[in-house]
Amino acid sequence: MGDLTITTFDWVPEAPRGYVRDLRVRWALEEAGLPYRVESVPFGDRKAEHFAHQPFGQAPWLTDGDISIFESGAILLHLGELSDTLMPTDPQGRSDAKEWLFAALNSVEMASLPWSILIFSGEDRESSAWKLFSGFLHQHRLKHLEPVLAEREWLAGSFSVADIMMSDVLRLVDRFDGLADYPAVRAYVARATARPAFAKAHADQMAHFAAAD
Amino acid sequence: MGDLTITTFDWVPEAPRGYVRDLRVRWALEEAGLPYRVESVPFGDRKAEHFAHQPFGQAPWLTDGDISIFESGAILLHLGELSDTLMPTDPQGRSDAKEWLFAALNSVEMASLPWSILIFSGEDRESSAWKLFSGFLHQHRLKHLEPVLAEREWLAGSFSVADIMMSDVLRLVDRFDGLADYPAVRAYVARATARPAFAKAHADQMAHFAAAD
Repeated sequence: MGDLTITTFDWVPEAPRGYVRDLRVRWALEEAGLPYRVESVPFGDRKAEHFAHQPFGQAPWLTDGDISIFESGAILLHLGELSDTLMPTDPQGRSDAKEWLFAALNSVEMASLPWSILIFSGEDRESSAWKLFSGFLHQHRLKHLEPVLAEREWLAGSFSVADIMMSDVLRLVDRFDGLADYPAVRAYVARATARPAFAKAHADQMAHFAAAD
Repeated sequence: MGDLTITTFDWVPEAPRGYVRDLRVRWALEEAGLPYRVESVPFGDRKAEHFAHQPFGQAPWLTDGDISIFESGAILLHLGELSDTLMPTDPQGRSDAKEWLFAALNSVEMASLPWSILIFSGEDRESSAWKLFSGFLHQHRLKHLEPVLAEREWLAGSFSVADIMMSDVLRLVDRFDGLADYPAVRAYVARATARPAFAKAHADQMAHFAAAD
């Protein structure tokens, strides 16, 4: 492992503060107790150097010595492999943590992001698109996640990067009252975000963006 | 490594044939020359045993001996770690393959799936939701992917699981003429799908579902 540096935006508008994806990375690093630095790139004028690290012009990315990694999922996988506090050590547990890391992104966020984009854009709740994406999220995802989370504390045996990712994805659904019908999912998000490492990561992100106002 | 078995649906309607996600897994296994079996679960009546392997009732999942893995991304990561033909051997190359595996799912498919769901559902091309998701796919994703793919043959130095995932995600965009303005992206999809392992995987999936008609 080399020196660890998170690069995120220098500033974002009020609405996404507390939800920018560097939070996932800060949280994992705080859980693992790994030292890291935070650097900034302009939110407004995204330069070629930015796209060289993150081809879609998003944030964050992580550098570990000479290696540069974008995608919060890939970064959490990398950190999970650096620290036993972020991933179980037995083969089935490690495999479970990785599959749930992907599931948080590609099953749950794949359904929740379109839903939250429609909310942000003020979509009419009677529109065909709203019904389509709301049904996708509730009937095909949250309804199935509820019994899974009703019978386990964490997704992969012990707390892992999968829980950081899943609870962070679900936090944004909860923000818009999307978890009202899923008490076990709500309790899981509350359990995850009660961890001191989450509180530290969240406070640090809020302070980072506030400092640029 | 134990015995490898893919479980997929016994049957699906005509429209998704050739695009069901077991294709990604078949393709990787064909590239690696690893022996595997294919088993089926009912598409119509999904039982508790199915949800025990895939909590959202989807397909496929892979069993490797005693280990059961769902999520096509997690399965491709697992296979990439089994075979040097599916992932580069140098640290930066392996890291690149993993980040692009996540990017294919969480940056590109995250934008392309809502777009294709709206096409499947016959959404009005003048609706606010269509403009929102079409803009997300084109302006924030494909526009940035084009220069990346214009300057490299494969995403991570050599052909890897990242290319299986990315080209399979992009195939569905191409099916609905979404790649018309991106010649490098189209050429990449053509390059990937010209590989014999893709042809074998595709033909095997088509034959699997046709056998159930």
